[in-house]
Amino acid sequence: MPHTSPENRKSYVKFVKIPTRWIDNDLYGHVNNTVFYSYFDTAINTYLIKFGNLNIHSGDIIGVCAESHCSYLKAVHFPQELEVGIRVNGLSEKSVRYELGLFNFNTSKAAAQGWFVHVFVNRRNMKPVKIPNKIKTALMKLEAPFNANQN
Amino acid sequence: MPHTSPENRKSYVKFVKIPTRWIDNDLYGHVNNTVFYSYFDTAINTYLIKFGNLNIHSGDIIGVCAESHCSYLKAVHFPQELEVGIRVNGLSEKSVRYELGLFNFNTSKAAAQGWFVHVFVNRRNMKPVKIPNKIKTALMKLEAPFNANQN
Amino acid sequence: MPHTSPENRKSYVKFVKIPTRWIDNDLYGHVNNTVFYSYFDTAINTYLIKFGNLNIHSGDIIGVCAESHCSYLKAVHFPQELEVGIRVNGLSEKSVRYELGLFNFNTSKAAAQGWFVHVFVNRRNMKPVKIPNKIKTALMKLEAPFNANQN
Amino acid sequence: MPHTSPENRKSYVKFVKIPTRWIDNDLYGHVNNTVFYSYFDTAINTYLIKFGNLNIHSGDIIGVCAESHCSYLKAVHFPQELEVGIRVNGLSEKSVRYELGLFNFNTSKAAAQGWFVHVFVNRRNMKPVKIPNKIKTALMKLEAPFNANQN
Repeated sequence: MPHTSPENRKSYVKFVKIPTRWIDNDLYGHVNNTVFYSYFDTAINTYLIKFGNLNIHSGDIIGVCAESHCSYLKAVHFPQELEVGIRVNGLSEKSVRYELGLFNFNTSKAAAQGWFVHVFVNRRNMKPVKIPNKIKTALMKLEAPFNANQN
Repeated sequence: MPHTSPENRKSYVKFVKIPTRWIDNDLYGHVNNTVFYSYFDTAINTYLIKFGNLNIHSGDIIGVCAESHCSYLKAVHFPQELEVGIRVNGLSEKSVRYELGLFNFNTSKAAAQGWFVHVFVNRRNMKPVKIPNKIKTALMKLEAPFNANQN
Repeated sequence: MPHTSPENRKSYVKFVKIPTRWIDNDLYGHVNNTVFYSYFDTAINTYLIKFGNLNIHSGDIIGVCAESHCSYLKAVHFPQELEVGIRVNGLSEKSVRYELGLFNFNTSKAAAQGWFVHVFVNRRNMKPVKIPNKIKTALMKLEAPFNANQN
Repeated sequence: MPHTSPENRKSYVKFVKIPTRWIDNDLYGHVNNTVFYSYFDTAINTYLIKFGNLNIHSGDIIGVCAESHCSYLKAVHFPQELEVGIRVNGLSEKSVRYELGLFNFNTSKAAAQGWFVHVFVNRRNMKPVKIPNKIKTALMKLEAPFNANQN
């Protein structure tokens, strides 16, 4: 049914290593579909903390997920070592759309690919706010060069 | 950014209760985005086991996730009692597309909605196969009446 | 190796229903050992919120886990409906020791049993504090009658 | 209440790196107590697969958890990089008792420590069997030198 073709590593800008865990495998012997999103989530937040100064514990402004999507192209398994590739495609004043690819260590074609929309909000009232400068700068560095995703 | 409007309970055909767990809440105090997919996954498999005779432990034919999507409209929290509404919209020979809505107990508007594509495969070789009759019959019962999703 | 004998339902004071989820099953087809603790955690916090007024979102005093233990006696599986039985055995000024049993719906012998120690702390500085009265009263109601655990 | 004193790195024989994930943090901002066990589980299985030839997908003999325990000494958080130290203390014909310590990268004192008992069973009938030689040899290499845990 889904005829998504796998993207290439080189269409992503940054990579975050994600070793699998025993519990990631479900009854069918593969990493469970829901766990892929926790890889994406981890990769995005790792990047924002490291390069955008995101303070998840006490910052006034946080990113909350408004939409997410994943196409599963090839099963992955514990104990494989995985990597998530990230790029930004859709940066606006208060939100950002990340595109993500999941790769087996040393393979060039994605085992899964998806997207994830963060809306930045005030932590107390959950109302959307402008993306802080430091984060915006970090996000701009993830913007894919023209045609990057035409592999 | 995402301007999805919440669907109504009555546009779904069956409901599965999902009590939340302490661990579902993440650092921001809401059920984490990845956990919504485990609610969908649980609702679908609960239905297939109960009404379609799906044998997850030793059946020859299993359903694997090819694609999934979720729009997050309203935060939910442990210890809320949730319900997942299911309908089928897109049933073909070897795959099915479910549409799902997540509801707080006693509310009529969805807190999140998404879709999920199952491809049925042979458990040994993971090759797509025709959906078994018993499962197909169960899936047909989930097909939304015409216009059901125009609430 | 472990020669723990299963306790009876009647040696627990309160019960919390825990439906299993698809993702709880691991590669071996049983609920994964780590997930049992999330059942215990959920049962304890559900009770404290409901009967002890615990405010997990903004209360000044929270309970943090200092120690936990589980003996696994019989495998459980999704889609079983489970129940956690709770009793208190060890209530002191700043901490409490819960004893927990996991039961299949309608069986009298525990499939797993364990304990869990909560230390109550100030949320900001994580320093131990006296258990608030309202919580203490709720915990006293969980104290097992004499010899309750000699089934 | 629990007066466990933290063990030193050097009382463990092997180490497995465990980067944290966003979802590991719970509402209180720390890695949730149940997640520690998934770190232990991952470390043990990673070692057995790598050094003991454990075939989790189709081997006849698997290790199932009979008992587990954890003492929580110091909170850990995403995005910290953690390591699990392992040693064996209690190797018998059909089962093994691992002792585990969780360490922050570059610290010498454990943030948590626990144990975990594996009983080796026949995958079909779940009856205990003798530990296969290759696994036994790997486990013997984890046995702590005399007094190793008197740090």
